[in-house]
Amino acid sequence: MAKKAVVLLSGGIDSTTTLAIAKTEGFELHALSFQYGQRNVHELRAAQKIAHDMKVKHHLVLDIDLSAVGGSALTTDTPVPKKRTDEEIRQAIPITYVPARNIVFLALSLAWAESIGASDIFIGVNTLDSSGYPDCRPEFIRTFEKTANLGTKAGVEGRPFRIHTPLINMTKAQIIQKGITLGVDYSLTQSCYDPAPNGRSCGECDSCLLRKKGFREAGIPDPTPYVE
Amino acid sequence: MAKKAVVLLSGGIDSTTTLAIAKTEGFELHALSFQYGQRNVHELRAAQKIAHDMKVKHHLVLDIDLSAVGGSALTTDTPVPKKRTDEEIRQAIPITYVPARNIVFLALSLAWAESIGASDIFIGVNTLDSSGYPDCRPEFIRTFEKTANLGTKAGVEGRPFRIHTPLINMTKAQIIQKGITLGVDYSLTQSCYDPAPNGRSCGECDSCLLRKKGFREAGIPDPTPYVE
Repeated sequence: MAKKAVVLLSGGIDSTTTLAIAKTEGFELHALSFQYGQRNVHELRAAQKIAHDMKVKHHLVLDIDLSAVGGSALTTDTPVPKKRTDEEIRQAIPITYVPARNIVFLALSLAWAESIGASDIFIGVNTLDSSGYPDCRPEFIRTFEKTANLGTKAGVEGRPFRIHTPLINMTKAQIIQKGITLGVDYSLTQSCYDPAPNGRSCGECDSCLLRKKGFREAGIPDPTPYVE
Repeated sequence: MAKKAVVLLSGGIDSTTTLAIAKTEGFELHALSFQYGQRNVHELRAAQKIAHDMKVKHHLVLDIDLSAVGGSALTTDTPVPKKRTDEEIRQAIPITYVPARNIVFLALSLAWAESIGASDIFIGVNTLDSSGYPDCRPEFIRTFEKTANLGTKAGVEGRPFRIHTPLINMTKAQIIQKGITLGVDYSLTQSCYDPAPNGRSCGECDSCLLRKKGFREAGIPDPTPYVE
């Protein structure tokens, strides 16, 4: 019987590629998405299409109202920054940072994993082409894993959890190239922080800019419907 | 201006005493409770009364559907164990264990703390008179704190979080004695895992048994309305 893996699935390039990697490694896929008060419901729709396309065993969408705790342009009405240069994107942690988001998401994926008897959790974080979020760094992931193994029944009883981060040292271009070899349909994915009401991507937020750059550097046509 | 603290408040003896301690230490109190699919809504009502009684600045109740992830007698229809001996309570992690609960709760308290600019988080865990839950142990708390400081903007920018566990080495009797000196009204608190529809405590689950023993050993009359 295939081992179960919980895979965090936002519906963007990274989590979708991560899901494809977990599938290739032979895991039974349990995809986890969050409805966390973010403004792009399109992201969740993308996650649903991807989960279906990749034939996951179970796709759980958990409601968690992060807008109640506030503090981010992704969960409030604060404008999303546009047309920033590579330099600007890398320099400081932007206001699109959601307080403790990956800690919250990993904690919930851990709860689900323990409950269904999975020891493997996949998350598509990467340090190279990200926006400098502290909760995407390897030292954070390793410490979270240690916390998970100290703070759960499975962990203390000798069934330790492993947090897999297959993309952690890859550029966006490398991620896309990897996904293409695994048959990922990137036209289903959604990266934009601020899509138009019809779901088209803005093309100007940090996430769109990183996405465009990734396809350009990978030498692969970008299938994304942009506003312009 | 008083420093802000986020205090996890379930409505039981431990979290209520912890709230009183944070108040005595001069913090501005931001109490956080969860509606997480548990069957005792009475616990949340207790938390609301306590938050009002202790004049907290803000009481946030976050909806988080832990029953969707399953795996515990506290969030499903599995019967709660009754009339267990001290020995039985201490021996193994019981089915009332909620997978990764304190990791999830601490992660969300961290998100709120970062968002409101608080560096101090209080949680009423204790190792002595608890049911052997792994996420109540000091080594778990210290590792979580490290994870929090690696995985948040505040942490990496030099405003580290501190997880306060003032009860960690206290018995239930000592906790109750401490709370009485701080003026805690324990008649407002609720510990039962399986209360009757009218809110009266069952008197037989692990949590009721530990509560009764605590009052008995503290030499203080137990104000709890029990079923029998």
